[in-house]
Amino acid sequence: MNDALAAALRRAADHQERFEARFAAHFDALADPEGGGARLPPHGRFPARALELVRELSLRGGKRLRVALLHEAAALVADRPAPGLDAAAISVELLHTHGLIHDDIIDDAPLRRGGPSTYYAYRAEFPDHPDTALALAVLAGDLAAFLAVRALLTGDLPPDRALAMATVATDAAAAAVNGQLIDLERDFHPAPDTAFLHTVTEYKSTHYSILAPLRLGLLAAGTDPAPHDADLRAYATALGTANQIHDDWLDLFGNPDTLGKPLGTDLRSGRHSYLVHALLAATADDPAARTTLRAALGTPDPAAVATLRTLARTHHLDRTLPAEAARHAHRAAALAAGWHHWHPGAVAFFTHLPAWSVTRDH
Amino acid sequence: MNDALAAALRRAADHQERFEARFAAHFDALADPEGGGARLPPHGRFPARALELVRELSLRGGKRLRVALLHEAAALVADRPAPGLDAAAISVELLHTHGLIHDDIIDDAPLRRGGPSTYYAYRAEFPDHPDTALALAVLAGDLAAFLAVRALLTGDLPPDRALAMATVATDAAAAAVNGQLIDLERDFHPAPDTAFLHTVTEYKSTHYSILAPLRLGLLAAGTDPAPHDADLRAYATALGTANQIHDDWLDLFGNPDTLGKPLGTDLRSGRHSYLVHALLAATADDPAARTTLRAALGTPDPAAVATLRTLARTHHLDRTLPAEAARHAHRAAALAAGWHHWHPGAVAFFTHLPAWSVTRDH
Repeated sequence: MNDALAAALRRAADHQERFEARFAAHFDALADPEGGGARLPPHGRFPARALELVRELSLRGGKRLRVALLHEAAALVADRPAPGLDAAAISVELLHTHGLIHDDIIDDAPLRRGGPSTYYAYRAEFPDHPDTALALAVLAGDLAAFLAVRALLTGDLPPDRALAMATVATDAAAAAVNGQLIDLERDFHPAPDTAFLHTVTEYKSTHYSILAPLRLGLLAAGTDPAPHDADLRAYATALGTANQIHDDWLDLFGNPDTLGKPLGTDLRSGRHSYLVHALLAATADDPAARTTLRAALGTPDPAAVATLRTLARTHHLDRTLPAEAARHAHRAAALAAGWHHWHPGAVAFFTHLPAWSVTRDH
Repeated sequence: MNDALAAALRRAADHQERFEARFAAHFDALADPEGGGARLPPHGRFPARALELVRELSLRGGKRLRVALLHEAAALVADRPAPGLDAAAISVELLHTHGLIHDDIIDDAPLRRGGPSTYYAYRAEFPDHPDTALALAVLAGDLAAFLAVRALLTGDLPPDRALAMATVATDAAAAAVNGQLIDLERDFHPAPDTAFLHTVTEYKSTHYSILAPLRLGLLAAGTDPAPHDADLRAYATALGTANQIHDDWLDLFGNPDTLGKPLGTDLRSGRHSYLVHALLAATADDPAARTTLRAALGTPDPAAVATLRTLARTHHLDRTLPAEAARHAHRAAALAAGWHHWHPGAVAFFTHLPAWSVTRDH
């Protein structure tokens, strides 16, 4: 690792560490009966439990890449921390929690971030009432969504800035829902092309995980992101695509201990990922391999995941996919390197982040 | 019907009629690829279909009581229509759509507003993929939630007013989620008391269907609702309780044609309603009747619904429940009659509305 990359990672780690404490304090305030931020009723335990599960999943880590992007986007134009950054960070991470909770219902996924998904936490609490567990998980996800918006509305920002930031966050959330919808549609698509896959990535994750934090960071620092939107979009798309291809690769070739979930999870949920797309393309002229592939994708148990790994290695996907991810990462880095009008420290962060995003192990 | 009540209903019908056209136009704009309000991706049909189903359910009527409350709350203090009322009306109705879509998943309800629920519309489209239908319905509900917030953020209001209104709407939405949570909890509660039932009503519907429209109407008209909050809350609680008791009564004694759904729907979903609470109380000392009651509640098919109706009549609940609803309605009317500091035309509306709310047939 070179020094500049190490410096970028230290900056990201600093943002993460400061954020964890603030996020926990935000949940403390929400649960405080005096503060009343979560609108907990005077009767019943279910609302407090839902808030607790939203909190547990929210605080169970993740890389907080969104938080680092937010702070560094503000640092592109401002010399000191901008006042709206904490609210924005809390909002985007709560939006992410909302998405994870509903996504794990959709995928029937038991594990998330090294612990139970919210849906499965409820299933363990209501073993004889799976419908109740489902209902509670839907509602916990809804709660996270409204708390995410609320975090931006009730900060101490000037109203026009708060309004602009809440609009960015809400638009990103709507885009993410559409991303989930075309992600589901992809599984019914006979042969989605690369453009379709890129659109899924763009809407399902890039928009709210990269582009929205960039826009929010600039807004928090008092800079209108509109004149820079083409630059921000190009960078976000390149980094988001690199990220997603790397995630797809990790799902088959990563380390389950650092990932916090078993390998092949995305295959198990039937997603037509970049990896599956590449496997289908590689086996197009090999009927026997194609049959093996279809069978393994149809019942992706651990043995089938091993078969898919072997098949992917045979077709060199263990190397060509990372190369493809690296290509997008280089493009992102080259774009950021051209941001001469912005502060060099933050520009260096955006220049070196893509290399890390395609070499990380979780 | 006396003249004052007829005048109040005409005012409500006028608000409804004007709103329907504006709501349809809002959906047209959302679906417009140029406008891009719904963030529809360039690929895929699922996002447009989700928006279409949100639109269909949203436009399939309902009484639009929330819309009338909004306009009349503004008319309490303003002589002409306030600019933010349309955005607020669209927002609260979209929040309601969000709640209905997820509620119908939770209750596994096939019908809503005289047509298929969103969940069952998807089940009809994906007969072999019930999990996909569930996933799509969860996402359609999420889309409605974010579009509801967006409607208030992107209107042409002054930023401080838009921010205050979005905060009211988001707080009401969070309260409604908590209401759904304690509604579910009620079914696990051995013997919820009246205070528990009132809290469910307060959070599940009163907060977002009555109190939030009142606050939003005043805000749209440029009046801070905070100094009037005790008055607004007292009125909302009385009207909301009257409404809910009447709804519970309609579920057993209403006309299925005007209701748009079969009788006993709420019983079928296992809800411990005011009606069930009254039935349990009435049969406390009658073991045979209690056994009949438990059996009918356990398998509420049409025959059981008839049994429950007979049992309710035996214990005079067909008359005592409406009397209880009327008591709360009278209290609401008496409170509004004391609003001498506000415009008499709108005060008359709030004074006469409660009588209608406990005599309506749907």
